[in-house]
Amino acid sequence: MRTILVTNDDGITAKGLNCLVEAIKDLGNIVVVAPDGPRSAQSKAITVTTPLRYWKQYTNGNLTMYRCNGTPCDCVKIGMYSILDRKPDLLVAGINHGTNSSINVIYSGTMGAALEGCAEGIPSMGLSLCSYDQNADMTEAVRHSVKLIKKVLDEGLPTGICLNVNFPVGEIKGAKIVRQSRGRWQERFVEGTDPAGNKYYWLTGTFNNFEPDAEDTDEGTLKAGYASIVPCHIDLTHYQSVETLKSWNYDSQKV
Amino acid sequence: MRTILVTNDDGITAKGLNCLVEAIKDLGNIVVVAPDGPRSAQSKAITVTTPLRYWKQYTNGNLTMYRCNGTPCDCVKIGMYSILDRKPDLLVAGINHGTNSSINVIYSGTMGAALEGCAEGIPSMGLSLCSYDQNADMTEAVRHSVKLIKKVLDEGLPTGICLNVNFPVGEIKGAKIVRQSRGRWQERFVEGTDPAGNKYYWLTGTFNNFEPDAEDTDEGTLKAGYASIVPCHIDLTHYQSVETLKSWNYDSQKV
Repeated sequence: MRTILVTNDDGITAKGLNCLVEAIKDLGNIVVVAPDGPRSAQSKAITVTTPLRYWKQYTNGNLTMYRCNGTPCDCVKIGMYSILDRKPDLLVAGINHGTNSSINVIYSGTMGAALEGCAEGIPSMGLSLCSYDQNADMTEAVRHSVKLIKKVLDEGLPTGICLNVNFPVGEIKGAKIVRQSRGRWQERFVEGTDPAGNKYYWLTGTFNNFEPDAEDTDEGTLKAGYASIVPCHIDLTHYQSVETLKSWNYDSQKV
Repeated sequence: MRTILVTNDDGITAKGLNCLVEAIKDLGNIVVVAPDGPRSAQSKAITVTTPLRYWKQYTNGNLTMYRCNGTPCDCVKIGMYSILDRKPDLLVAGINHGTNSSINVIYSGTMGAALEGCAEGIPSMGLSLCSYDQNADMTEAVRHSVKLIKKVLDEGLPTGICLNVNFPVGEIKGAKIVRQSRGRWQERFVEGTDPAGNKYYWLTGTFNNFEPDAEDTDEGTLKAGYASIVPCHIDLTHYQSVETLKSWNYDSQKV
């Protein structure tokens, strides 16, 4: 029987995770290892200086849920190397409450988990709904997620590739396989003073899409009402620049 | 006068950071914003659910040092949007105590900071010595770092590119511009029981290089005694797979 490892970054009580699990519980052994609380924007952080712990939360038929005190990436490692006795057939992270398109992919704990699965050679995907509402309607996102999960179980994924899947809010017109948009957050800190009189700084910002008219991107696809599917990998090398930088004549010299 | 923003993931007291700052203090205004303690393997994690704080630690001439309660990535954001009134001319993260070659780049707090600078359009680099010894001899790594920092200040970097620089231990024969090695950690958890009788799990593992004979990689370069310089970017799209996955005929369909 197939084993599907599920995690998220919103924590084990999040609606997105629980709706997803309910919908896929007949597809195999479902093992959830999710953080014991919110771990948004934890990227691919792993816990190395303190120990991890995990607890069985719930079990019913093919479904077993564990909560863990670590990051989403830790949850994948705990799932693979402490709970399961074999590599799962699929890793799914989500459904996240909030977008992970464009530059968000580099901060996302959801995609951190998916990229960890990818590094381990497991077909992996991160699923996100473009709404930060913790009570968001998950119906459409769940329906599309189930279809995509079945497709990936049937077809597999290219080696070293995972999927960054984002769903628009409302009716979903279909899905498109696209690239990551170029964009960034225009950030600022809200400054405050705590009751003890000490200053604190709280991050906020607005997203700035550098290519708002590009239809072949995740942002463009979502704006048009389609789910975006971006194949991602963990090789950060910018190959073209390997050649460009050789023109420095810095390469191989005794420095 | 040029402004150089410096951070790390080993924390403000780390030898690697302090040796580097001492060596570059005449190159411009040096503003250090470093974590108040170790933040290894924090990747590109950012703090969004709790406030950040920072404190001036030290000031002398062109050098000002701040400590911050956040991640390396937070330190870059605090440096840019709260402390400095302009974009720095260069961002340097390190010198890290420990390798950030191959897959380590995705977990690295040092490279998390460099990639954050990169996303902000600042010429950025992460510098790491392949030794986890907190008292490691930094002489050679510092000498090479200063030379490379001067080169990047003179030449700039291609848009959207930062450098992942790793130094071998001992004498350094030169530097090579190369790609990220394929590899992964073969991981396991050391299981223990705390004084209260509760189980804990501590991550450990050994690195497995998938291409040990490849000379055009960071791992191959370091093994040969040279510093490795890998140009990195934040676009995780695997472009070849965008085309491959279109053969699914999943693209654009009403799902």
